Amino acid sequence: MSPAPALPHRAEIEHAVRRQLYQRLNRPPPRSVRAPHPLVVNVSARHCHLTPQAVETLFGPGHQLKPVKSLYQAGQFAAEECVTLIGPRSRVISNLRILGPCRDFNQVELALTDAISLGFEVPVRQSGTIKDTPSCMLMGPAGFFEMPEGVIRAAPHVHMHPDDASFYGVKQGDFMRLKVGGPCAMTFDRMLVRVDKSFKLEVHIDTDEGNACGLSPETPCELLSL
Amino acid sequence: MSPAPALPHRAEIEHAVRRQLYQRLNRPPPRSVRAPHPLVVNVSARHCHLTPQAVETLFGPGHQLKPVKSLYQAGQFAAEECVTLIGPRSRVISNLRILGPCRDFNQVELALTDAISLGFEVPVRQSGTIKDTPSCMLMGPAGFFEMPEGVIRAAPHVHMHPDDASFYGVKQGDFMRLKVGGPCAMTFDRMLVRVDKSFKLEVHIDTDEGNACGLSPETPCELLSL
Repeated sequence: MSPAPALPHRAEIEHAVRRQLYQRLNRPPPRSVRAPHPLVVNVSARHCHLTPQAVETLFGPGHQLKPVKSLYQAGQFAAEECVTLIGPRSRVISNLRILGPCRDFNQVELALTDAISLGFEVPVRQSGTIKDTPSCMLMGPAGFFEMPEGVIRAAPHVHMHPDDASFYGVKQGDFMRLKVGGPCAMTFDRMLVRVDKSFKLEVHIDTDEGNACGLSPETPCELLSL
Repeated sequence: MSPAPALPHRAEIEHAVRRQLYQRLNRPPPRSVRAPHPLVVNVSARHCHLTPQAVETLFGPGHQLKPVKSLYQAGQFAAEECVTLIGPRSRVISNLRILGPCRDFNQVELALTDAISLGFEVPVRQSGTIKDTPSCMLMGPAGFFEMPEGVIRAAPHVHMHPDDASFYGVKQGDFMRLKVGGPCAMTFDRMLVRVDKSFKLEVHIDTDEGNACGLSPETPCELLSL
């Protein structure tokens, strides 16, 4: 079961319009317009990824996640289901969103502010790299699920198609800079590059990072090589 | 009544030792060692500044703030007293620290994460520039105090002595960059410069900004002109 297909993102429409404009005016387009895809910067609020087994333990045998919102990356969605995250100080976050589809590992992604408030000492990790990360307990309507590891702060990263990687001159595992404008202008100097044929060009930063730079839909953002 | 005089800051001792070392080795010191003062970067958690009248309304007639911790800027201190901040959604923060001494205006400084959680739409402002900023209600043991304005997100800023301003080639109201290293390396591109003879060289960022760049006492930081 999939959520309704997402409409084209505002950035995609703007990118197509700009290309057409420069072409019709017969003027050389700036670099951002020559890029194969528009740059989308999104803030990821705290969330988790779960295995089918974890979902069944938390929500009952045979339970399937119900997609409620398509994310920008194809096939990815926010599920209707949330869990309660119980931290080492017995403090809880009661509405931790599950992002689907299910994966083959369990992972909780927190901003540092969340982690401090719950008492987790979170390392900065690439998604999926969870060896020697903190454990936690999750609670759902059908029961508890103990995660022996997997609580991380996701490294700020950019998803991209090989065409984007070629345009920016980077490869999987490289770092780039993201320059953010506005009244709280800030440059992220270690933006991890993740390349896959299935990826659309999208930067993911967490709520601390998004709030620190005051990101809004109008904030100008630019991806730069190191 | 003043708190116990602060010991020299670790950065001041290190700066003095580095100067001595380069002098004794008869080697040209790097720029950071030639600087008149060491760079100290501190995270300001949410707090408020109050007038004597507000303190009396909240804590009772004749009440004086009790200093419990000296801050790096001479004469500034964290008071023993906290107030409860009531936001527009009737959500509260129950331990908002008062920083002393009293000022001639009332101001609440929040990180954007705090502001969103309480429902304030906070503008980014220099401290003291509070015209047309949100109102709030404070609660203390002796009563309520209504602030008609003064809830802000403080612009990231650097306090400096005129000697520092001269060294870095900046003046009051200019902007500088603060380059922060480490696994979440980040550059603050609009660091407001505040110059006064009484100021020690110190950057103030809020908890969102400090958590976004993962600031710890070991994190390398460098102040750069634009």
